[in-house]
Amino acid sequence: MAPEMTTLKGKAFDRASLESLMRRRMFYTPSFDIYGGVSGLYDYGPPGSALTNNIIDVWRKHFVLRENMLEVDCTMLTPHDVLKTSGHVDKFADWMCKDPKTGEIFRADHLVEEVLEARIKGDKEARGEKVEVEEEDPKKKKKKVKNIAVVKLDDAVRDEYKEVLNKIDNYNGEELGRLMKEYDIRNPANNSELTPPVAFNLMFQTSIGPSSNLPGYLRPETAQGQFLNFAKLLEFNQQQMPFASASIGKSFRNEISPRQGLLRVREFLMAEIEHFVDPSGGKKHPYFDEVKDVELELLNRDVQLSGKADVDTTTIGKAVETGLVDNETLGYFLARIQLFLLKIGVDPKKIRFRQHMANEMAHYAADCWDAELLTSYGWIECVGCADRSAYDLSVHMKKTGAPLVVREPRKEPLKIEEWQCDLDKKKFGPKFKKDGKTVEAAIESLSQDIREKLSLDLQKDGKITIDVPGVGDGKVEVPKELITIEKRTRVENVREYTPNVIEPSFGIGRIFYALCEHSYWTREQDEARGVLSFPPTVAPTKVLIVPLSSHGDFKPFVRKLTNKLQDAGVSNRVDDSGASIGKRYSRNDELGTPLGITIDFQSVKDNTFTLRDRDSTEQVRGSLDEIVAAISSLVEGREKWADISKRLPKFEGQEEGVGPS
Amino acid sequence: MAPEMTTLKGKAFDRASLESLMRRRMFYTPSFDIYGGVSGLYDYGPPGSALTNNIIDVWRKHFVLRENMLEVDCTMLTPHDVLKTSGHVDKFADWMCKDPKTGEIFRADHLVEEVLEARIKGDKEARGEKVEVEEEDPKKKKKKVKNIAVVKLDDAVRDEYKEVLNKIDNYNGEELGRLMKEYDIRNPANNSELTPPVAFNLMFQTSIGPSSNLPGYLRPETAQGQFLNFAKLLEFNQQQMPFASASIGKSFRNEISPRQGLLRVREFLMAEIEHFVDPSGGKKHPYFDEVKDVELELLNRDVQLSGKADVDTTTIGKAVETGLVDNETLGYFLARIQLFLLKIGVDPKKIRFRQHMANEMAHYAADCWDAELLTSYGWIECVGCADRSAYDLSVHMKKTGAPLVVREPRKEPLKIEEWQCDLDKKKFGPKFKKDGKTVEAAIESLSQDIREKLSLDLQKDGKITIDVPGVGDGKVEVPKELITIEKRTRVENVREYTPNVIEPSFGIGRIFYALCEHSYWTREQDEARGVLSFPPTVAPTKVLIVPLSSHGDFKPFVRKLTNKLQDAGVSNRVDDSGASIGKRYSRNDELGTPLGITIDFQSVKDNTFTLRDRDSTEQVRGSLDEIVAAISSLVEGREKWADISKRLPKFEGQEEGVGPS
Repeated sequence: MAPEMTTLKGKAFDRASLESLMRRRMFYTPSFDIYGGVSGLYDYGPPGSALTNNIIDVWRKHFVLRENMLEVDCTMLTPHDVLKTSGHVDKFADWMCKDPKTGEIFRADHLVEEVLEARIKGDKEARGEKVEVEEEDPKKKKKKVKNIAVVKLDDAVRDEYKEVLNKIDNYNGEELGRLMKEYDIRNPANNSELTPPVAFNLMFQTSIGPSSNLPGYLRPETAQGQFLNFAKLLEFNQQQMPFASASIGKSFRNEISPRQGLLRVREFLMAEIEHFVDPSGGKKHPYFDEVKDVELELLNRDVQLSGKADVDTTTIGKAVETGLVDNETLGYFLARIQLFLLKIGVDPKKIRFRQHMANEMAHYAADCWDAELLTSYGWIECVGCADRSAYDLSVHMKKTGAPLVVREPRKEPLKIEEWQCDLDKKKFGPKFKKDGKTVEAAIESLSQDIREKLSLDLQKDGKITIDVPGVGDGKVEVPKELITIEKRTRVENVREYTPNVIEPSFGIGRIFYALCEHSYWTREQDEARGVLSFPPTVAPTKVLIVPLSSHGDFKPFVRKLTNKLQDAGVSNRVDDSGASIGKRYSRNDELGTPLGITIDFQSVKDNTFTLRDRDSTEQVRGSLDEIVAAISSLVEGREKWADISKRLPKFEGQEEGVGPS
Repeated sequence: MAPEMTTLKGKAFDRASLESLMRRRMFYTPSFDIYGGVSGLYDYGPPGSALTNNIIDVWRKHFVLRENMLEVDCTMLTPHDVLKTSGHVDKFADWMCKDPKTGEIFRADHLVEEVLEARIKGDKEARGEKVEVEEEDPKKKKKKVKNIAVVKLDDAVRDEYKEVLNKIDNYNGEELGRLMKEYDIRNPANNSELTPPVAFNLMFQTSIGPSSNLPGYLRPETAQGQFLNFAKLLEFNQQQMPFASASIGKSFRNEISPRQGLLRVREFLMAEIEHFVDPSGGKKHPYFDEVKDVELELLNRDVQLSGKADVDTTTIGKAVETGLVDNETLGYFLARIQLFLLKIGVDPKKIRFRQHMANEMAHYAADCWDAELLTSYGWIECVGCADRSAYDLSVHMKKTGAPLVVREPRKEPLKIEEWQCDLDKKKFGPKFKKDGKTVEAAIESLSQDIREKLSLDLQKDGKITIDVPGVGDGKVEVPKELITIEKRTRVENVREYTPNVIEPSFGIGRIFYALCEHSYWTREQDEARGVLSFPPTVAPTKVLIVPLSSHGDFKPFVRKLTNKLQDAGVSNRVDDSGASIGKRYSRNDELGTPLGITIDFQSVKDNTFTLRDRDSTEQVRGSLDEIVAAISSLVEGREKWADISKRLPKFEGQEEGVGPS
């Protein structure tokens, strides 16, 4: 079950209230709602869209601008061959089975998991054991099995079930099918037998151009476009290594049955970095020193294997030193990811980094740590940080022949002692005729060990005998007139290698949702007054302008403030409705608007205004310029409210209570 | 043929050089290049991606922030039903025909056009007439017909061809097929007869979810998502009209055979505004006064009908006054579009607004003006500004029953005198039995005129006779015991209407390309030194930092400058390669980097630096703070270079020449 969640102010978190607020105030809304909606597709409304844009803006400054990453924007439409090579056509799939009577479709691993868990629960009840609150589990799904039969199981069966559940991510389709047969797992709703699991590829397929002979997919990640452009990016970077590319854009995943709102959707915004690094020399990072004292909560593989969830709290410097985190580059990005999450307002007590188990890593990953954020759905993977090794560049290079490698001059030329075979080409052709090329290739592919042995044969017998399948009886004799074998020194001035890739990959929609949970609380003595305490930098709208009433005297001041704030690039809205000041502020607390300016009769007299802080509801008073300067400073993150309230005089005039609307 | 184009500096524009620069410096690159590429798909590299982001940033400030538009982000995946209702499933198509021998596919209208034009050209040569340079034409395509046969045509045939060409956008598939038969139009490459034209829908199709019973498309425009959310957006806007929504995102068009590089692609970035306005009251706009003196070049429908391209240069105020532009809201946006284009650096001499001809408007449009930018491909539509009337909201409302309307209290209640029919329901049922509902509906649908006439019948005959198809012989008598017909006054307190939509729709990729053409020139005495004179606000990188040499003394200054600029949010790159200063600046002129800082031995002594202006190559000198302040001011558009060079002392030290690299 989900962990007991508390809000910023220590009260119990109520997901239903937050979700109601978010839909009502159009943070997001089901897509195509008036057509009945499509599961797994959501639109972002004005505050959601602005919040997302602001998160992206911070991301771009924090990562791309800061490290001169090479941002690219590649197409989503991707031809079949690219994703065949990358492995997605064959491996990016889930197992599904179908109820032939109702047509209902199930994701096989989820179904087995749900049914076995329900049976274990029923067994516990039957044994009169207390049905404990389940341990938190990041991959827990909403239960489909509603009516749990109270049936006692054999001890052996129960243990078998538990073992299956521990390995649920490891089964392929055939194995899942066997489990369903063995344990008689059926459609929980009507007890129908289901068809055996078949692979369902999670990419949306389409056809590019009119002739239907160019099948394509919507990309499942932005990464492939970055890999395919590697050679051009290296050239753009004047051949300097290491470097990173980055990309922000939509990706797609045709989920079998999407659940959990914004956490599992079919179309989603990603921000991905591909950091290309020389695999030799321990994957050092030039700026590692700048982050080495950042403290992280790390949940490593071994602890998880032992069935626990105890985190190590440690600096990333120490974690890399002890080998808990494999290398500096991976460590650097874990720290930078945490700093980014804190900057946008994620609750520091609700972040941890979890290492992937060997069996849950994607097909391309060598190592992987997830930044997980604690939500009412459990710990949710929001940022993956994978070491994809040289996998992608290698497979694309092998398929296309494009040189996806780094070639760099060696500081010290490399001297290699090796056995070399020289052929007398003039005599070689006439002797072997049409087989000449084949024999030559066979000689070239001889290993160093065999060459050394053959050089002795040549001295002793005046000829060598080698295996050449398909020529004569498969054995070919080469006399010493045609070949010499000598040990010589070769000098290599250029080093060529395929870079490894460290990939921090951000699911922006998941971060968005977790941030909303972390920022949500309700005012003391008024549960209905929800507040979203986004930091000013990411808040959808920065300032609410509130004239005391619709009195004509206030209008020019509204216009003056609006223009002034727009010139400073600060988003603002005016609420000149008839509602009370308190009600108007309260409406905008729900939108996460951090600051409010009230225009009152004093303003008309002396051109001063009050500035209100959303979180404390404190107000200060100042001149137009003082107020605007304070706002800019807060929005750009240069000062906190505490600084402003020290500088400007407090104001306690208007009421904060909720009046009639 | 394309018009004679000149660069900013008055030299002839050379498209090949610009395109070579843009590919070489990775402004864009064919997607999946190492797999052979896919036509109509391009990736944006680091400078292209940054330029696009900066254009979008200006767009968002100019439109969304400025007018508090409601930005939304809707999904690209769109179910079939939505696009069936909008008309795209039936009408968003081109006509294609196929060479059955080679499998080659042609867009039928393009083929007819190309072949007939080639024949007219051949005829001219045969007559010994001078083959004139063709008049500029915004829709001119690259010619496929290479070898033009010199054959004289009958005068009548030639005139017929010309008439067909004038109406080429008007033919449907059947008509195009007939033209191809009649004029014996075949594959120009091999003279094969082609299959008759069939409609090819330009949307990419896919299937949502695992069951393949939910067909969907990639959206052809962002607009539909905004329309479907209309009711929620109106609610979010506290029922205030008019208001606008906006959306920035990718859309898709499965072109039959894409050409012209970035101008006709299959996946493209759009920025669209849907401004919802009350159709009564002349579609006034509250801020029209702010733009009424903006001068535009307008090419109206009548002028085009007469075969000319003469533009009216006029203020938008006058254009709306005289009815040349239909209403204030349309006029307001035309002016705002022009101001936006100028802000990002489009050449003011290369903008015009062209009104659509009746036959070229999209199926939903009531009126439409395009902002066209002059490029070497001719005048290119870059922004459409259409009045979509109430079309979209009406069809979606009709299909779904959702109330996509505005309901507003009337200031003065509306009094309507009307003939009302009252039925005695108790007697009505027993008399008509199962036909009761049908008869009742027939009475309710009677017009006012007929009701008036029937009230006289009722007085005279004590009964009325009405047509009710399907009941008895289709005539039904209703006696006066069952019905009364009276003239009464009805009071309506609420007005309900479907808003009209004015839609400014920006093709960001096309604007991007036109901007590059407009910004490109070469240095005097060195044609190879291309320069892209983007304004600092949109330039991909703002500042190049150039230490005089790789001398260790310069390193701390590089770091200090980089940090200082990053803190100010200014993107910068360091070039500490061994190339000469001139060469390094020249490389960055190609990227459009407007400013350069040189660190020299003087810097080490007194902490001053030179700042170089890309366009004039002028340099000034100042302290760290002075230089950074000048840069911020230029990047934010507060000052021009002329202001800076007045304020800071000129510097003429380092050389500008291109040294060896």
